[in-house]
Amino acid sequence: MRLARLREISGDPFEGDPFHPEAGASGAGRPVDGLAWLPPCRPSKIIGVGRNYRDHVAELGHSVPSEPLLFLKPPSSLLPHGGIVRLPSGTRRVDFEGELGVVIGREARHVTETGALDHVLGYACVNDVTARDLQVKDVQFTRSKGFDSFCPFGPCIAIGLRPDDLVVETFVNGVRRQSAPVSRMIFDIRRLISFVSDVMTLLPGDLIATGTPEGVGPLEPGDQVTVSIEGIGRLTNRVEG
Amino acid sequence: MRLARLREISGDPFEGDPFHPEAGASGAGRPVDGLAWLPPCRPSKIIGVGRNYRDHVAELGHSVPSEPLLFLKPPSSLLPHGGIVRLPSGTRRVDFEGELGVVIGREARHVTETGALDHVLGYACVNDVTARDLQVKDVQFTRSKGFDSFCPFGPCIAIGLRPDDLVVETFVNGVRRQSAPVSRMIFDIRRLISFVSDVMTLLPGDLIATGTPEGVGPLEPGDQVTVSIEGIGRLTNRVEG
Repeated sequence: MRLARLREISGDPFEGDPFHPEAGASGAGRPVDGLAWLPPCRPSKIIGVGRNYRDHVAELGHSVPSEPLLFLKPPSSLLPHGGIVRLPSGTRRVDFEGELGVVIGREARHVTETGALDHVLGYACVNDVTARDLQVKDVQFTRSKGFDSFCPFGPCIAIGLRPDDLVVETFVNGVRRQSAPVSRMIFDIRRLISFVSDVMTLLPGDLIATGTPEGVGPLEPGDQVTVSIEGIGRLTNRVEG
Repeated sequence: MRLARLREISGDPFEGDPFHPEAGASGAGRPVDGLAWLPPCRPSKIIGVGRNYRDHVAELGHSVPSEPLLFLKPPSSLLPHGGIVRLPSGTRRVDFEGELGVVIGREARHVTETGALDHVLGYACVNDVTARDLQVKDVQFTRSKGFDSFCPFGPCIAIGLRPDDLVVETFVNGVRRQSAPVSRMIFDIRRLISFVSDVMTLLPGDLIATGTPEGVGPLEPGDQVTVSIEGIGRLTNRVEG
Protein backbone atom coordinates (compact mmCIF):
# COMPACT_ATOMS: atom_id res chain seq x y z
CA MET A 1 0.00 0.00 0.00
CA ARG A 2 1.29 3.43 -0.86
CA LEU A 3 -0.30 6.61 0.44
CA ALA A 4 -0.84 8.82 -2.63
CA ARG A 5 -3.31 11.50 -1.57
CA LEU A 6 -4.35 13.10 1.72
CA ARG A 7 -7.14 15.26 3.06
CA GLU A 8 -6.63 17.91 5.71
CA ILE A 9 -8.44 17.63 9.01
CA SER A 10 -9.13 20.71 11.09
CA GLY A 11 -8.02 21.10 14.68
CA ASP A 12 -6.37 18.53 16.94
CA PRO A 13 -7.88 15.08 16.35
CA PHE A 14 -7.19 14.16 19.98
CA GLU A 15 -9.35 17.06 21.17
CA GLY A 16 -12.39 15.75 19.34
CA ASP A 17 -13.10 12.12 18.51
CA PRO A 18 -9.82 10.64 17.32
CA PHE A 19 -11.62 7.49 16.25
CA HIS A 20 -13.43 9.39 13.50
CA PRO A 21 -10.93 12.01 12.29
CA GLU A 22 -12.46 11.95 8.82
CA ALA A 23 -15.45 13.78 10.28
CA GLY A 24 -13.27 16.91 10.29
CA ALA A 25 -11.73 16.28 6.87
CA SER A 26 -12.28 18.82 4.17
CA GLY A 27 -11.79 19.11 0.43
CA ALA A 28 -10.98 16.66 -2.29
CA GLY A 29 -7.48 15.97 -1.09
CA ARG A 30 -4.04 16.74 -2.39
CA PRO A 31 -1.11 14.66 -3.53
CA VAL A 32 1.33 13.54 -0.86
CA ASP A 33 4.39 14.06 -3.05
CA GLY A 34 6.46 17.06 -2.07
CA LEU A 35 5.04 17.42 1.44
CA ALA A 36 7.25 17.07 4.51
CA TRP A 37 6.19 14.35 6.95
CA LEU A 38 5.86 14.74 10.70
CA PRO A 39 5.38 12.04 13.32
CA PRO A 40 1.66 11.26 13.08
CA CYS A 41 1.07 12.35 16.68
CA ARG A 42 2.99 13.65 19.71
CA PRO A 43 3.01 10.94 22.38
CA SER A 44 3.35 12.12 25.99
CA LYS A 45 5.32 8.89 26.44
CA ILE A 46 6.75 6.10 24.32
CA ILE A 47 6.75 2.72 26.03
CA GLY A 48 9.04 0.05 24.60
CA VAL A 49 8.86 -3.69 25.25
CA GLY A 50 12.06 -5.73 25.36
CA ARG A 51 12.45 -9.41 24.51
CA ASN A 52 8.91 -9.97 23.21
CA TYR A 53 9.67 -12.44 20.37
CA ARG A 54 11.23 -15.78 21.29
CA ASP A 55 13.65 -15.94 18.34
CA HIS A 56 14.92 -12.41 19.06
CA VAL A 57 15.46 -13.33 22.72
CA ALA A 58 17.52 -16.28 21.48
CA GLU A 59 19.59 -14.26 18.99
CA LEU A 60 20.69 -11.90 21.78
CA GLY A 61 21.32 -14.79 24.19
CA HIS A 62 18.76 -13.74 26.81
CA SER A 63 16.09 -15.73 28.62
CA VAL A 64 12.36 -15.33 28.07
CA PRO A 65 10.92 -12.86 30.61
CA SER A 66 8.08 -13.88 32.92
CA GLU A 67 6.39 -10.49 32.56
CA PRO A 68 6.62 -7.77 29.88
CA LEU A 69 9.96 -5.94 30.11
CA LEU A 70 9.21 -2.20 29.83
CA PHE A 71 11.42 0.74 28.96
CA LEU A 72 10.81 4.31 27.84
CA LYS A 73 12.09 6.29 24.87
CA PRO A 74 11.98 10.09 25.23
CA PRO A 75 9.70 12.12 22.92
CA SER A 76 12.84 13.93 21.73
CA SER A 77 13.87 10.71 19.94
CA LEU A 78 10.85 10.82 17.56
CA LEU A 79 11.62 10.95 13.85
CA PRO A 80 9.09 11.13 11.01
CA HIS A 81 9.01 9.09 7.83
CA GLY A 82 11.75 10.52 5.64
CA GLY A 83 13.79 11.87 8.56
CA ILE A 84 17.46 11.04 9.02
CA VAL A 85 18.70 8.61 11.67
CA ARG A 86 21.93 10.11 12.98
CA LEU A 87 24.58 7.74 14.35
CA PRO A 88 25.99 9.30 17.53
CA SER A 89 29.69 9.47 18.22
CA GLY A 90 30.69 7.20 21.08
CA THR A 91 28.89 4.12 19.81
CA ARG A 92 30.25 1.48 17.46
CA ARG A 93 27.06 -0.41 16.65
CA VAL A 94 23.57 0.99 16.06
CA ASP A 95 20.87 -1.56 15.18
CA PHE A 96 17.48 -1.30 13.49
CA GLU A 97 14.54 -2.94 15.28
CA GLY A 98 11.33 -2.99 13.23
CA GLU A 99 8.18 -3.07 15.37
CA LEU A 100 4.42 -2.65 15.41
CA GLY A 101 3.44 0.57 17.19
CA VAL A 102 0.13 0.81 19.07
CA VAL A 103 -1.31 4.33 19.42
CA ILE A 104 -3.69 4.96 22.31
CA GLY A 105 -6.97 6.76 21.58
CA ARG A 106 -8.73 6.70 24.96
CA GLU A 107 -7.19 7.02 28.42
CA ALA A 108 -6.34 3.59 29.82
CA ARG A 109 -5.79 2.85 33.50
CA HIS A 110 -6.10 -0.65 34.95
CA VAL A 111 -7.83 -1.98 31.84
CA THR A 112 -8.42 -5.69 31.35
CA GLU A 113 -7.07 -7.65 28.41
CA THR A 114 -10.64 -8.10 27.19
CA GLY A 115 -11.27 -4.36 27.02
CA ALA A 116 -7.78 -3.32 25.95
CA LEU A 117 -8.34 -2.82 22.23
CA ASP A 118 -11.18 -0.35 22.94
CA HIS A 119 -8.44 2.07 24.03
CA VAL A 120 -6.44 1.76 20.79
CA LEU A 121 -6.75 4.45 18.15
CA GLY A 122 -4.68 2.63 15.55
CA TYR A 123 -1.37 1.19 14.48
CA ALA A 124 1.89 2.48 13.01
CA CYS A 125 5.38 1.32 12.12
CA VAL A 126 8.15 2.00 14.64
CA ASN A 127 11.89 1.55 14.33
CA ASP A 128 13.27 1.12 17.88
CA VAL A 129 16.81 2.17 16.92
CA THR A 130 19.31 0.94 19.54
CA ALA A 131 23.01 1.54 20.20
CA ARG A 132 23.77 -2.10 20.96
CA ASP A 133 27.18 -1.58 22.55
CA LEU A 134 25.87 1.08 24.94
CA GLN A 135 22.85 -1.09 25.77
CA VAL A 136 25.19 -3.85 26.95
CA LYS A 137 27.47 -1.42 28.81
CA ASP A 138 24.72 0.56 30.57
CA VAL A 139 22.35 -2.31 31.42
CA GLN A 140 19.62 0.37 31.61
CA PHE A 141 18.25 0.85 28.07
CA THR A 142 17.63 4.60 28.41
CA ARG A 143 20.75 6.00 26.77
CA SER A 144 21.13 3.35 24.07
CA LYS A 145 17.53 3.77 22.89
CA GLY A 146 17.09 7.46 23.72
CA PHE A 147 19.28 9.40 21.28
CA ASP A 148 17.66 12.05 19.10
CA SER A 149 16.31 10.44 15.88
CA PHE A 150 16.23 6.92 17.43
CA CYS A 151 12.43 6.57 17.19
CA PRO A 152 11.21 6.65 13.57
CA PHE A 153 7.40 6.51 13.81
CA GLY A 154 4.86 6.53 11.01
CA PRO A 155 4.21 7.07 8.19
CA CYS A 156 0.63 7.37 9.51
CA ILE A 157 -1.68 5.91 12.14
CA ALA A 158 -3.86 3.30 10.44
CA ILE A 159 -7.27 2.97 12.05
CA GLY A 160 -9.85 0.19 11.74
CA LEU A 161 -7.27 -2.61 11.42
CA ARG A 162 -7.47 -6.05 12.97
CA PRO A 163 -4.03 -6.26 14.55
CA ASP A 164 -3.73 -9.99 15.06
CA ASP A 165 -2.82 -10.85 11.48
CA LEU A 166 -0.25 -8.11 10.85
CA VAL A 167 3.28 -8.95 9.74
CA VAL A 168 6.27 -6.74 10.60
CA GLU A 169 8.99 -6.52 7.96
CA THR A 170 12.23 -4.55 7.90
CA PHE A 171 14.34 -3.85 4.83
CA VAL A 172 17.86 -2.39 4.67
CA ASN A 173 18.80 -1.08 1.24
CA GLY A 174 15.94 -3.09 -0.19
CA VAL A 175 17.00 -6.41 1.37
CA ARG A 176 14.49 -8.01 3.73
CA ARG A 177 16.09 -8.49 7.15
CA GLN A 178 13.10 -9.06 9.46
CA SER A 179 9.73 -10.68 8.80
CA ALA A 180 7.45 -11.99 11.52
CA PRO A 181 3.73 -12.12 12.23
CA VAL A 182 2.81 -10.21 15.39
CA SER A 183 0.99 -13.39 16.49
CA ARG A 184 4.43 -14.63 17.55
CA MET A 185 4.75 -12.05 20.32
CA ILE A 186 5.33 -13.60 23.75
CA PHE A 187 2.95 -11.03 25.33
CA ASP A 188 0.27 -9.99 22.86
CA ILE A 189 -1.12 -6.50 22.30
CA ARG A 190 -4.01 -6.90 24.76
CA ARG A 191 -1.69 -8.18 27.49
CA LEU A 192 0.79 -5.35 26.91
CA ILE A 193 -1.88 -2.63 27.11
CA SER A 194 -3.39 -4.17 30.24
CA PHE A 195 0.04 -4.62 31.88
CA VAL A 196 1.27 -1.11 31.09
CA SER A 197 -2.03 0.43 32.20
CA ASP A 198 -1.60 -1.21 35.61
CA VAL A 199 1.62 0.81 36.02
CA MET A 200 1.09 4.10 34.23
CA THR A 201 -2.00 5.80 32.90
CA LEU A 202 -1.97 5.70 29.09
CA LEU A 203 -3.12 8.92 27.46
CA PRO A 204 -4.47 9.58 23.95
CA GLY A 205 -1.50 9.71 21.57
CA ASP A 206 0.76 7.56 23.73
CA LEU A 207 2.76 4.99 21.78
CA ILE A 208 3.63 1.41 22.69
CA ALA A 209 6.42 -0.15 20.62
CA THR A 210 5.58 -3.82 20.97
CA GLY A 211 9.03 -5.39 20.56
CA THR A 212 11.13 -6.57 17.65
CA PRO A 213 11.38 -10.02 16.10
CA GLU A 214 14.62 -11.80 15.15
CA GLY A 215 16.90 -10.45 12.44
CA VAL A 216 18.16 -7.21 14.01
CA GLY A 217 21.43 -5.90 12.64
CA PRO A 218 23.67 -2.86 12.35
CA LEU A 219 23.07 0.29 10.32
CA GLU A 220 25.85 2.13 8.48
CA PRO A 221 26.03 5.66 7.11
CA GLY A 222 24.25 5.80 3.77
CA ASP A 223 21.87 2.93 4.56
CA GLN A 224 18.17 3.24 3.88
CA VAL A 225 16.01 1.38 6.40
CA THR A 226 12.30 0.66 5.96
CA VAL A 227 9.84 -0.83 8.43
CA SER A 228 6.82 -2.09 6.51
CA ILE A 229 3.50 -3.43 7.76
CA GLU A 230 0.85 -4.31 5.18
CA GLY A 231 -2.25 -2.24 5.90
CA ILE A 232 -0.24 0.55 7.54
CA GLY A 233 2.49 1.50 5.09
CA ARG A 234 6.22 1.91 4.81
CA LEU A 235 8.37 3.94 7.22
CA THR A 236 11.61 4.77 5.44
CA ASN A 237 14.62 6.61 6.88
CA ARG A 238 18.13 7.28 5.71
CA VAL A 239 21.11 6.85 8.03
CA GLU A 240 23.92 9.35 8.39
CA GLY A 241 27.05 9.25 10.51
CA MET B 1 11.30 28.99 54.02
CA ARG B 2 7.55 28.74 53.67
CA LEU B 3 5.70 30.11 50.69
CA ALA B 4 2.89 32.25 52.09
CA ARG B 5 1.69 34.42 49.23
CA LEU B 6 1.71 34.16 45.44
CA ARG B 7 1.13 36.37 42.45
CA GLU B 8 -0.50 35.17 39.24
CA ILE B 9 1.44 35.27 36.01
CA SER B 10 -0.38 35.47 32.72
CA GLY B 11 0.11 32.96 29.91
CA ASP B 12 2.63 30.15 29.69
CA PRO B 13 5.96 31.23 31.18
CA PHE B 14 7.78 28.87 28.78
CA GLU B 15 6.28 30.71 25.81
CA GLY B 16 7.81 34.00 26.90
CA ASP B 17 10.99 34.42 28.93
CA PRO B 18 10.87 31.81 31.66
CA PHE B 19 13.87 33.38 33.33
CA HIS B 20 11.84 36.47 34.19
CA PRO B 21 8.32 35.17 34.91
CA GLU B 22 7.68 38.04 37.31
CA ALA B 23 7.50 40.31 34.25
CA GLY B 24 4.03 38.86 33.63
CA ALA B 25 2.95 38.90 37.28
CA SER B 26 -0.05 40.97 38.21
CA GLY B 27 -1.74 42.20 41.34
CA ALA B 28 -0.72 42.34 44.97
CA GLY B 29 -0.79 38.60 45.48
CA ARG B 30 -3.03 36.24 47.37
CA PRO B 31 -2.51 33.82 50.22
CA VAL B 32 -1.39 30.32 49.28
CA ASP B 33 -3.57 28.65 51.90
CA GLY B 34 -6.59 26.89 50.46
CA LEU B 35 -5.26 26.68 46.91
CA ALA B 36 -4.62 23.31 45.22
CA TRP B 37 -1.06 22.76 44.05
CA LEU B 38 -0.04 21.50 40.63
CA PRO B 39 3.38 20.35 39.45
CA PRO B 40 5.20 23.63 38.76
CA CYS B 41 5.62 22.74 35.08
CA ARG B 42 4.87 19.94 32.62
CA PRO B 43 8.15 18.32 31.57
CA SER B 44 8.19 16.63 28.16
CA LYS B 45 10.56 14.18 29.85
CA ILE B 46 11.86 13.39 33.32
CA ILE B 47 15.43 12.09 33.38
CA GLY B 48 16.56 10.28 36.49
CA VAL B 49 20.14 9.54 37.52
CA GLY B 50 20.94 6.33 39.39
CA ARG B 51 23.80 5.78 41.84
CA ASN B 52 25.03 9.38 41.99
CA TYR B 53 26.01 9.55 45.69
CA ARG B 54 28.77 7.22 46.91
CA ASP B 55 27.14 6.35 50.25
CA HIS B 56 23.84 5.49 48.52
CA VAL B 57 25.70 3.25 46.04
CA ALA B 58 27.23 1.50 49.06
CA GLU B 59 23.94 1.07 50.94
CA LEU B 60 22.41 -0.73 47.93
CA GLY B 61 25.55 -2.83 47.40
CA HIS B 62 26.34 -1.52 43.91
CA SER B 63 29.57 -0.26 42.37
CA VAL B 64 30.25 3.35 41.42
CA PRO B 65 29.37 3.91 37.73
CA SER B 66 31.98 5.25 35.31
CA GLU B 67 29.39 7.45 33.56
CA PRO B 68 26.03 8.85 34.69
CA LEU B 69 23.39 6.09 34.80
CA LEU B 70 20.24 7.47 33.17
CA PHE B 71 16.63 6.36 33.34
CA LEU B 72 13.29 7.97 32.51
CA LYS B 73 10.14 8.46 34.56
CA PRO B 74 6.92 9.00 32.56
CA PRO B 75 5.11 12.35 32.84
CA SER B 76 2.09 10.38 34.09
CA SER B 77 4.02 9.74 37.33
CA LEU B 78 4.10 13.46 38.27
CA LEU B 79 2.50 14.43 41.58
CA PRO B 80 2.21 17.93 43.03
CA HIS B 81 2.98 19.07 46.55
CA GLY B 82 0.09 17.83 48.67
CA GLY B 83 -0.79 14.96 46.33
CA ILE B 84 -1.11 11.38 47.52
CA VAL B 85 1.54 8.73 46.79
CA ARG B 86 -0.42 5.54 46.10
CA LEU B 87 1.28 2.22 46.87
CA PRO B 88 0.51 -0.17 44.00
CA SER B 89 -0.60 -3.72 44.58
CA GLY B 90 2.03 -6.23 43.52
CA THR B 91 4.91 -4.56 45.34
CA ARG B 92 6.02 -5.15 48.91
CA ARG B 93 8.47 -2.29 49.34
CA VAL B 94 8.17 1.29 48.07
CA ASP B 95 11.00 3.64 49.01
CA PHE B 96 11.31 7.43 49.19
CA GLU B 97 14.31 8.99 47.43
CA GLY B 98 14.72 12.73 48.08
CA GLU B 99 16.53 14.56 45.28
CA LEU B 100 17.39 17.94 43.82
CA GLY B 101 15.45 18.56 40.60
CA VAL B 102 16.94 20.69 37.82
CA VAL B 103 14.41 22.38 35.51
CA ILE B 104 15.59 23.31 32.02
CA GLY B 105 14.81 26.83 30.75
CA ARG B 106 16.56 26.90 27.37
CA GLU B 107 16.93 24.07 24.85
CA ALA B 108 20.16 22.17 25.46
CA ARG B 109 21.87 19.95 22.89
CA HIS B 110 25.56 19.02 23.09
CA VAL B 111 26.25 21.71 25.71
CA THR B 112 29.56 21.85 27.54
CA GLU B 113 29.88 21.64 31.30
CA THR B 114 31.02 25.25 31.33
CA GLY B 115 27.86 26.48 29.63
CA ALA B 116 25.46 24.02 31.22
CA LEU B 117 23.95 26.22 33.94
CA ASP B 118 22.92 28.83 31.31
CA HIS B 119 20.26 26.30 30.27
CA VAL B 120 18.81 25.90 33.78
CA LEU B 121 15.64 27.75 34.70
CA GLY B 122 15.71 26.77 38.35
CA TYR B 123 15.56 24.08 41.00
CA ALA B 124 12.86 22.05 42.74
CA CYS B 125 12.47 19.16 45.14
CA VAL B 126 11.80 15.72 43.67
CA ASN B 127 10.88 12.46 45.36
CA ASP B 128 11.99 9.63 43.05
CA VAL B 129 9.60 7.09 44.58
CA THR B 130 10.75 3.54 43.76
CA ALA B 131 9.25 0.07 44.19
CA ARG B 132 12.47 -1.52 45.40
CA ASP B 133 11.42 -5.16 44.98
CA LEU B 134 10.30 -4.61 41.38
CA GLN B 135 13.48 -2.65 40.63
CA VAL B 136 15.55 -5.69 41.63
CA LYS B 137 13.27 -8.12 39.77
CA ASP B 138 13.00 -6.14 36.52
CA VAL B 139 16.61 -4.88 36.27
CA GLN B 140 15.18 -2.11 34.03
CA PHE B 141 14.01 0.74 36.31
CA THR B 142 11.02 1.73 34.18
CA ARG B 143 8.22 -0.09 35.98
CA SER B 144 9.54 0.33 39.52
CA LYS B 145 9.95 4.09 39.13
CA GLY B 146 7.10 4.71 36.68
CA PHE B 147 3.86 4.15 38.60
CA ASP B 148 1.31 6.97 38.71
CA SER B 149 2.10 9.30 41.67
CA PHE B 150 5.76 8.14 41.88
CA CYS B 151 7.22 11.54 40.97
CA PRO B 152 6.34 14.22 43.55
CA PHE B 153 7.77 17.47 42.13
CA GLY B 154 7.65 20.94 43.64
CA PRO B 155 6.44 22.82 45.52
CA CYS B 156 7.78 25.47 43.10
CA ILE B 157 10.71 26.13 40.77
CA ALA B 158 13.15 28.40 42.61
CA ILE B 159 15.08 30.67 40.28
CA GLY B 160 18.28 32.63 40.88
CA LEU B 161 19.81 30.03 43.23
CA ARG B 162 23.45 29.00 43.36
CA PRO B 163 23.03 25.22 43.28
CA ASP B 164 26.43 24.13 44.58
CA ASP B 165 25.69 24.77 48.26
CA LEU B 166 22.23 23.20 48.44
CA VAL B 167 21.45 20.41 50.93
CA VAL B 168 18.80 17.75 50.23
CA GLU B 169 16.85 16.52 53.26
CA THR B 170 14.03 14.00 53.52
CA PHE B 171 11.70 13.58 56.49
CA VAL B 172 9.21 10.77 57.15
CA ASN B 173 6.59 11.65 59.74
CA GLY B 174 8.83 14.49 60.87
CA VAL B 175 11.96 12.34 61.38
CA ARG B 176 14.96 13.26 59.28
CA ARG B 177 16.03 10.28 57.16
CA GLN B 178 18.26 11.82 54.48
CA SER B 179 20.57 14.83 54.62
CA ALA B 180 23.37 15.46 52.14
CA PRO B 181 24.94 18.41 50.36
CA VAL B 182 24.61 18.15 46.59
CA SER B 183 28.36 18.78 46.44
CA ARG B 184 28.70 15.07 47.26
CA MET B 185 27.24 13.99 43.92
CA ILE B 186 29.56 11.73 41.92
CA PHE B 187 28.58 13.55 38.69
CA ASP B 188 27.73 17.18 39.40
CA ILE B 189 24.89 19.22 37.88
CA ARG B 190 27.01 20.63 35.05
CA ARG B 191 28.29 17.19 34.09
CA LEU B 192 24.79 15.70 34.17
CA ILE B 193 23.33 18.39 31.92
CA SER B 194 26.22 18.12 29.48
CA PHE B 195 26.05 14.30 29.45
CA VAL B 196 22.28 14.13 28.97
CA SER B 197 22.34 16.81 26.28
CA ASP B 198 24.80 14.66 24.28
CA VAL B 199 22.10 11.96 24.15
CA MET B 200 18.77 13.74 24.02
CA THR B 201 17.82 17.34 23.36
CA LEU B 202 16.63 18.95 26.60
CA LEU B 203 13.60 21.21 26.17
CA PRO B 204 12.30 24.03 28.37
CA GLY B 205 10.43 22.48 31.29
CA ASP B 206 12.31 19.18 31.18
CA LEU B 207 13.29 17.85 34.59
CA ILE B 208 16.49 16.11 35.68
CA ALA B 209 16.26 14.30 39.03
CA THR B 210 19.90 14.29 40.07
CA GLY B 211 20.03 11.17 42.25
CA THR B 212 19.42 10.39 45.88
CA PRO B 213 21.90 10.29 48.78
CA GLU B 214 22.10 7.56 51.43
CA GLY B 215 19.25 6.94 53.87
CA VAL B 216 16.49 5.65 51.56
CA GLY B 217 13.82 3.58 53.22
CA PRO B 218 10.31 2.21 52.87
CA LEU B 219 7.03 4.11 53.00
CA GLU B 220 3.91 2.76 54.65
CA PRO B 221 0.25 3.76 54.31
CA GLY B 222 -0.42 6.81 56.46
CA ASP B 223 3.16 8.11 56.26
CA GLN B 224 3.86 11.74 55.47
CA VAL B 225 7.05 12.26 53.45
CA THR B 226 8.75 15.62 52.90
CA VAL B 227 11.69 16.48 50.66
CA SER B 228 13.14 19.79 51.81
CA ILE B 229 15.82 21.97 50.24
CA GLU B 230 16.61 25.30 51.90
CA GLY B 231 16.02 28.05 49.36
CA ILE B 232 13.45 26.01 47.44
CA GLY B 233 10.91 24.82 49.97
CA ARG B 234 9.23 21.70 51.29
CA LEU B 235 7.54 19.07 49.09
CA THR B 236 5.16 17.12 51.30
CA ASN B 237 3.02 14.12 50.29
CA ARG B 238 0.90 11.64 52.15
CA VAL B 239 1.11 7.91 51.39
CA GLU B 240 -1.91 5.66 50.92
CA GLY B 241 -2.16 1.93 50.27
